[in-house]
Amino acid sequence: MTSNTASHLRLTSHPGRVSTRRFPIQWDAQSASQRGPVIATPNAGAERNAIGAHGGAYSIYRALAISSGAMASDARPDLTDTHPVAPIGPHAQWREPGRIVSLDPWGHRVAEDFAAELAGGVDIRPTIAVTSARIALPEIREAVARGRLKIDGEVVQAGGEVAVTKAAIDPVWHLPGIAARFDVEEAQLRRALFEQTGGMYPELVTRPDIAVFLPPIGGITLYIFGDPARLGDRRFPLTCRVHDECNSSDVFGSDICTCRPYLIHGIEAAARQAQEGGAGLVVYNRKEGRALGEVTKFLVYNARQRQPGGDRAATYFERTECVAGVRDARVQELMPDALHWLGVRRIDRFISMSNMKYDALVAGGIEIGERAPIPDELAPPDACVEMEAKIAAGYFTLGKAPAARAVS
Amino acid sequence: MTSNTASHLRLTSHPGRVSTRRFPIQWDAQSASQRGPVIATPNAGAERNAIGAHGGAYSIYRALAISSGAMASDARPDLTDTHPVAPIGPHAQWREPGRIVSLDPWGHRVAEDFAAELAGGVDIRPTIAVTSARIALPEIREAVARGRLKIDGEVVQAGGEVAVTKAAIDPVWHLPGIAARFDVEEAQLRRALFEQTGGMYPELVTRPDIAVFLPPIGGITLYIFGDPARLGDRRFPLTCRVHDECNSSDVFGSDICTCRPYLIHGIEAAARQAQEGGAGLVVYNRKEGRALGEVTKFLVYNARQRQPGGDRAATYFERTECVAGVRDARVQELMPDALHWLGVRRIDRFISMSNMKYDALVAGGIEIGERAPIPDELAPPDACVEMEAKIAAGYFTLGKAPAARAVS
Repeated sequence: MTSNTASHLRLTSHPGRVSTRRFPIQWDAQSASQRGPVIATPNAGAERNAIGAHGGAYSIYRALAISSGAMASDARPDLTDTHPVAPIGPHAQWREPGRIVSLDPWGHRVAEDFAAELAGGVDIRPTIAVTSARIALPEIREAVARGRLKIDGEVVQAGGEVAVTKAAIDPVWHLPGIAARFDVEEAQLRRALFEQTGGMYPELVTRPDIAVFLPPIGGITLYIFGDPARLGDRRFPLTCRVHDECNSSDVFGSDICTCRPYLIHGIEAAARQAQEGGAGLVVYNRKEGRALGEVTKFLVYNARQRQPGGDRAATYFERTECVAGVRDARVQELMPDALHWLGVRRIDRFISMSNMKYDALVAGGIEIGERAPIPDELAPPDACVEMEAKIAAGYFTLGKAPAARAVS
Repeated sequence: MTSNTASHLRLTSHPGRVSTRRFPIQWDAQSASQRGPVIATPNAGAERNAIGAHGGAYSIYRALAISSGAMASDARPDLTDTHPVAPIGPHAQWREPGRIVSLDPWGHRVAEDFAAELAGGVDIRPTIAVTSARIALPEIREAVARGRLKIDGEVVQAGGEVAVTKAAIDPVWHLPGIAARFDVEEAQLRRALFEQTGGMYPELVTRPDIAVFLPPIGGITLYIFGDPARLGDRRFPLTCRVHDECNSSDVFGSDICTCRPYLIHGIEAAARQAQEGGAGLVVYNRKEGRALGEVTKFLVYNARQRQPGGDRAATYFERTECVAGVRDARVQELMPDALHWLGVRRIDRFISMSNMKYDALVAGGIEIGERAPIPDELAPPDACVEMEAKIAAGYFTLGKAPAARAVS
């Protein structure tokens, strides 16, 4: 097998030459076995039924490790003891046609659902992992010290640590479903994905018979506060923050935006809801700089500061569009999928002012009760340009503009 | 052009059919014009001289935006006012053969160095952006409150905010140089990159004449404390932390590892060094979970906790290797490039215990003075398994094991 791989190279594949007959995928099926396993390993041969690679972009690091001899090319995961710490689903949404198109709802149950195939030597890999953790944040310790959050020994522990169940999700795209979600022809979508990436994965166009694609984009992390089973049960109120990555603020505390303060506020509110008999959820999406990346983001910062008249709300989105060609590439249309995976039908308290997130969730069939803006005292003074610009563009505000901090 | 693009599709390219003659790349050249611009836009046609796409994986979001009509496929960046807030280089290392192979040292100077070509309609894009920021972190405010860090009104400002110059860097790989760095044949490297990613970019194998590749992996962010010009000047002592992303800890404060505490300690030390007449640097590499990704990381957490005998240092790396096939895929061999880009020849105080990072820097020709472990009081109690395992594997410790917290 190894020597054969070394001698023969196939640039791309075509229908008929390689068959996906052994493991056809029937998306939206009633069970994991009817749906079939997603197989995208390089050595899978005729068993492969997906375009792309497991681990997305990290397959490039795997290639370097293999190339340099640090890793065997035929290494296979030993999945012993890796299964979820808490069961998630199956939920009704997993089988509703078109409800979930950008992740594999069965992706965390691989070792369980396909035990026989794995024992038979098929290389099936999880695309979701569920574990538990305790998180310790200075802002949460302060919330405890100030009495906003109480120690209950369960959700919030003695030292101020917060207990969570968390899930990491790699993207798994069902291309017909993705096309339908954006209301475009599937062939046109496949071609744009191929061409705009400079020719990544010719199989996007040569293999219309392969419906599943593992794109090398960043994934999603879910932080669940309280019993995960409550998320799909409307009797328990749910507080939820959907957060898109902003490394500058989330990690380094940049004072030009509200990202980290809003995220931390969401964590605090989610923990409190879990203590009060409900559940909390924070969704963390790897979509740096509105999914335009950090290089573009920093270029835009410079253009905003240097423009005639200086940085101001009126030209906030315009500067991004000039540099990036679009003001936002986060495509919130796919965002509700992670909530459907958890069985969520209603968010009682949504910790976000984003109209784009709100609209996507409602269009996805998720009810939203109250919407909670960031408390005034948490927004850094220098974030006023961002906030004003967003409010002007349709962000939700409870009717009060942040007048005290507004630039004139 | 648009209608032609829509009708004709080229799955991959071959030497001779498409020429890179107009803008040949001469890596390690003496000047930007001799080196030539890196061009990887989908519409570049015969001017394209690199495999891959600008923005890496974010090109996939761009494709969705274009496919859904939110963005024009021929949008071009307007680079007005986007140039660096502080000059970086050119440094001698930019021209030393093989010194920098994983980023484009001229990538932030595009608008300046190729102004004529841009005016002539060539679509050349920056792969590096340099901006300024103020960072506000609760731990740094605490360091100020406790007197470990003083307010000087320049590096550390009145409210405890820290002034930084920061750079975002997208990877630009010179494939012959990457192969040399790992001591493998270039053809073998290209083939591993192609095959292990499930067939991403056939041009890796069909176009040996194209030497440059923009891989869709995460990039690097540099946080510079004090005058960036000091980084390349040995008269000014340099304190540096090289940090690999750990979202669980860096953002959410997971108590199972030392990542965020060590990062924050590095920020504090870097700021102090800038105040004391030197310079500080924090390098943030997007290599989540040892470049194995978060799904693998969470699977490993579960396997560590559930193994017979429970989580312990002796089997820390073994569990990762069982699940991932390798204990670490971060390939520190490429890490020194960002420091060479800044002109760094010596790190006086290196805020890291990692032997892999140390070895890579020294092999890259960067001298290291003192090495600073994480202060005992900053390490979360639950991180002892990680720390013990790393020390056993060769991490630097100043001769003292973290005995007080060691598991028996």
